[in-house]
Amino acid sequence: MAYASSGTFERDTDYIPDRITRDGRKPEHGPVDGDLWPVEPGRYRLVAAKACPWATRSLIVRQLLGLEDVISVGLCGPTHDERSWTFDLDPGGVDPVLGIERLQQAYLARFPDYPKGITVPAIVDVPSGQVVTNDFPWITHDLFFEWREHHRADAPDLWPSHLRDEMDDVMERVYTEVNNGVYRCGFAGSQEAYDAAYDRLWTALDWLEDRLSRSRYLMGDTLTEADVRLWTTLARFDAVYHGHFKCNRQKLTEMPNLWGYARDLYALPAFSDNTDFEQIKTHYYVVHKDINPTQIVPKGPDLTTWQEPHGRG
Amino acid sequence: MAYASSGTFERDTDYIPDRITRDGRKPEHGPVDGDLWPVEPGRYRLVAAKACPWATRSLIVRQLLGLEDVISVGLCGPTHDERSWTFDLDPGGVDPVLGIERLQQAYLARFPDYPKGITVPAIVDVPSGQVVTNDFPWITHDLFFEWREHHRADAPDLWPSHLRDEMDDVMERVYTEVNNGVYRCGFAGSQEAYDAAYDRLWTALDWLEDRLSRSRYLMGDTLTEADVRLWTTLARFDAVYHGHFKCNRQKLTEMPNLWGYARDLYALPAFSDNTDFEQIKTHYYVVHKDINPTQIVPKGPDLTTWQEPHGRG
Repeated sequence: MAYASSGTFERDTDYIPDRITRDGRKPEHGPVDGDLWPVEPGRYRLVAAKACPWATRSLIVRQLLGLEDVISVGLCGPTHDERSWTFDLDPGGVDPVLGIERLQQAYLARFPDYPKGITVPAIVDVPSGQVVTNDFPWITHDLFFEWREHHRADAPDLWPSHLRDEMDDVMERVYTEVNNGVYRCGFAGSQEAYDAAYDRLWTALDWLEDRLSRSRYLMGDTLTEADVRLWTTLARFDAVYHGHFKCNRQKLTEMPNLWGYARDLYALPAFSDNTDFEQIKTHYYVVHKDINPTQIVPKGPDLTTWQEPHGRG
Repeated sequence: MAYASSGTFERDTDYIPDRITRDGRKPEHGPVDGDLWPVEPGRYRLVAAKACPWATRSLIVRQLLGLEDVISVGLCGPTHDERSWTFDLDPGGVDPVLGIERLQQAYLARFPDYPKGITVPAIVDVPSGQVVTNDFPWITHDLFFEWREHHRADAPDLWPSHLRDEMDDVMERVYTEVNNGVYRCGFAGSQEAYDAAYDRLWTALDWLEDRLSRSRYLMGDTLTEADVRLWTTLARFDAVYHGHFKCNRQKLTEMPNLWGYARDLYALPAFSDNTDFEQIKTHYYVVHKDINPTQIVPKGPDLTTWQEPHGRG
C-alpha cells in the first residue's frame, strides 16, 4: 500500500505487462510493454483466489466465454501471509499442476529478484512454471479478443465495438471511483482522507443507481465486461466493504437498482460459481490486521436474500 | 473490561450502591447496600454523556418524568482518555455547577483512592461535590419511585405494578442479551466467543421482533422503563453496533417491528432530545482504539430515515 501525504490510499499499479496474443503477434488493442506469448490451449494456468475481486473478474470472464477446457485454473485460499497467496485449499497444500505451494514460486521462477507484490490473478506458463502476467485488466481483455477462436459458440459479446468508447469511460469511472473507491475508504490514513473518499464513492454509486434505473446492464440490454468489473465490488459490498471499509451510507440491499442488478448477475452460473462469500469475508477480515486487529470474521450479513427474484430484464 | 478464559467479555458491575430515597428512608424496592441520601430538589446533579447508553437511560427518564427543574444535568463530551469522562463541551472545559474538568474529581472527592472505573451516569451531591451513586439501573428506578412527588402531573407510569414481575424478566433478558449482548459481540476475544455472542444476540432480537409484532410497546399499550432500556441499544444499532461491534445479521432498519418501534419512541422529545448520533459514533469509534486502530469515524449510515412515519399505535 502507498499513501499520499494527505493520508489518501493509492494503489500500486505496476504489473508485469506481458500479454498472451493470437500467435504471439501484436495484440488487437492496447500497449505492448512486455513480451508477447502465443495463445495455446492447455499451456497456461490461471491462478486466482475467489476472495480477491481483481482475480474474480478473470474467473468469471473465463467461464462466460467457455474457456474452461482451454485455460486451467488454480485457486489459492482466502488468507495469506507477507509472502502472499498459497495453495492451501489443495491436497498437501500443493497446486496439482504447477507443483508449488506458493504463487510466489512462479514469480521467482521468472524473476529471481521480483521486488513487487505477489498478486492474483496471475497467468502461469505451465511448461516452465513461470508467471506470464498479473496485469488484471488486460488479462480479461485478452481472454476476449485474443482467445476468440476458442470461445464457446454462443459466448456473449463482452466488448461490443459500437459501445467501446463509452464503455471505456464507464469502466474507468467504475475502476477509480468504485472498485478502488472502497479501498480508498477502508485504507484512508486520516479522517479527512476517509471523508473525501466516502463522498467520492457515494457520488459514483448514486450515478450507477441512476444509470441502472434506465437499463438492465451497465451498457444497455446485454452483458459486457463493464458488468463483470462492477460486479466484483457489489458482491463484496455488504459482506465486507460496508462495515470493514466503512462504506456505510447504505447497504447494497438498500439501493434498489444496484441490488436488483446484482441479483440478476448472481443468477448466472459464471457469477455465482465464482463468488464465495465465506472466502471473501475471511480474506479481508483476517488479512487486514491493521484495521481489524482481532481478525474476528463477522457472521453477518444474512446472505439468503441473494436468491430472491431480481425483477429485472 | 474483563474476559473469561474463553475470550468472552464480562462487564464489571461493581457500582457505588448508594441510593437517593424519599427523606433518606428505606427505599420502596430493592437493596440497601450503601448509604441513603434524601430526595431534595436542586441538591443533586446528574452527570451523563449522550454518547453512553447507560447514561442516556437516566436523561430520558428524567425528561419523561418532568424532573428537569429538580435535578440538574451536566454533560460530558463523547470521548475520554484513560482518566475517563471530561466536561470538554462546557466553556473552559469546566462544569459550571460542579466547577470540575473531570468527572473523576467527584469520585475522588468522595473516595480518594477510588479503584474502579469512572462511569456515567453519576449523581453528584452539589454542596459537597461528592459522587453519590453510579448504579445506573437503580438511578432510573429511584427517579420514578422515590422522586414521585416531584414528577410532572401527567408523567407516565413507567413501572406499572401489575406488570412488575413480567417487566423484571423482560428487562433482565434485554440487559443480558441485548444491552450487554452487543458489547459481548464487539469485545469478544476469540472467534468462538464472538460466534456464540452473535447467536445469543440475534436469538434475543428475533424474540423482540416477534414480541413487538403484537404490541406497540414492550409491555403492552403504554411506555415503560423497559422501553427506555431497550431504546438506548436500538438507537446505537445501525450507527455503531452493526459495523463496529460486528452485530451485522441485519440492520435495525431491516427489522420491521423493531424499526417502527424505534421510530415511534424517537418521535417523543425525551428520546430524540437525548439522542446525538454524532456523539454516539465519535465515542465508540474513537475510544475503542483496540478494535478501531485508525480511530476514523464512519460518515454513514444515512440517518434521515429516523423521521419517516413509524406506522405504529
